[in-house]
Amino acid sequence: MNLSELLHKRRSTRHYDANTAIERDELTRLLNAACRAPSGNNAQPWRFLIITEAPLREKLLPVAYNQQQILTASAIVLLLADRRAYQRDNLARIHQEGFENGCFSAEVRDFLTEAAVGFYASLDNAETDKALMLDCGLWAMSFMLAAEDAGWNTVPMSGYQPAALRELLALPPHYLDVMLIAIGKGSKEGHRSLRRPAESLVGWNALPTPD
Amino acid sequence: MNLSELLHKRRSTRHYDANTAIERDELTRLLNAACRAPSGNNAQPWRFLIITEAPLREKLLPVAYNQQQILTASAIVLLLADRRAYQRDNLARIHQEGFENGCFSAEVRDFLTEAAVGFYASLDNAETDKALMLDCGLWAMSFMLAAEDAGWNTVPMSGYQPAALRELLALPPHYLDVMLIAIGKGSKEGHRSLRRPAESLVGWNALPTPD
Repeated sequence: MNLSELLHKRRSTRHYDANTAIERDELTRLLNAACRAPSGNNAQPWRFLIITEAPLREKLLPVAYNQQQILTASAIVLLLADRRAYQRDNLARIHQEGFENGCFSAEVRDFLTEAAVGFYASLDNAETDKALMLDCGLWAMSFMLAAEDAGWNTVPMSGYQPAALRELLALPPHYLDVMLIAIGKGSKEGHRSLRRPAESLVGWNALPTPD
Repeated sequence: MNLSELLHKRRSTRHYDANTAIERDELTRLLNAACRAPSGNNAQPWRFLIITEAPLREKLLPVAYNQQQILTASAIVLLLADRRAYQRDNLARIHQEGFENGCFSAEVRDFLTEAAVGFYASLDNAETDKALMLDCGLWAMSFMLAAEDAGWNTVPMSGYQPAALRELLALPPHYLDVMLIAIGKGSKEGHRSLRRPAESLVGWNALPTPD
């Protein structure tokens, strides 16, 4: 399917066929497709905790306000952001690998690495979290489109209790919880939803005009 | 082009043909395609300030660390997030419009509106900004893919001085600056960049294993 069709066809799906499983290879393939997303300084801070087992779903259910897709979707992807991805170790390794694979010269490697380290070092904790959310948003959209393209349905879920989620999964402080994404085969189509036209949201060489 | 090709073909492009303009209608079409992205509670907090005029580009150049695409790309999209989008007025209007267009019943309208208002009211300022960054990340990825699909190149840019940008454009406090995206026709291909395989980033019913 082409992108325009994908963007228009995708709907948030909350009712799933509980008998449909997703193979680990298939889910890994979709995760990898989404990992082609860009990220600031190519830091790739996205990490994933995949939930398929029934006992863990049962514990997650009340944390996610009893939304039934926790039980019925083929898998729940907890998208995490790793704050360590913005540290020198990770940034230097990524650019070294790019250099070793012929993506760019040693000079570019060094420039990119130092620019990345300097950029993140200049951010306070709140700014770091904002950068992580943006990077992971790029990943999440790629993932939902890759899933749709492969015949799966998804729903992005911010509706959960963060503290309870962190406790349930014993998330260490270096992981930021970004969102849950349920993936499966819809048993009932999601409702349509409208979007405001870009013309009402844009300003040309000036701020958008308030409504 | 199909999605898989788009994801693999897209590269961050920093060298543009300065003689290529983008028609306002074409850019509006791409903005609208991206506006099909989902957002938390369908709040659609994305807003856009499009920069094409030379005097404004000249002023933006030093704010963006003299990155030459500010001058040579066909347009610069400043992606803004409107904190007012998370307020009752906007949320109620969006769900009322969905109801009036037959997307869902009055009961669902009321449920969705109250759930949305309650969700955002529960967030502090830092959590609100994180939600805005995530929503706008979903939009930004859709935009870059829509642009690529239409034969344009892009580069997402977090590298700018936020305070100087806000002053230059007189951004009011209800706008969060999310990122710049340059769009145009590449005059030189962006360098390849690698991605870490999902297998090294994923945990199955458990946290990902540290490297």
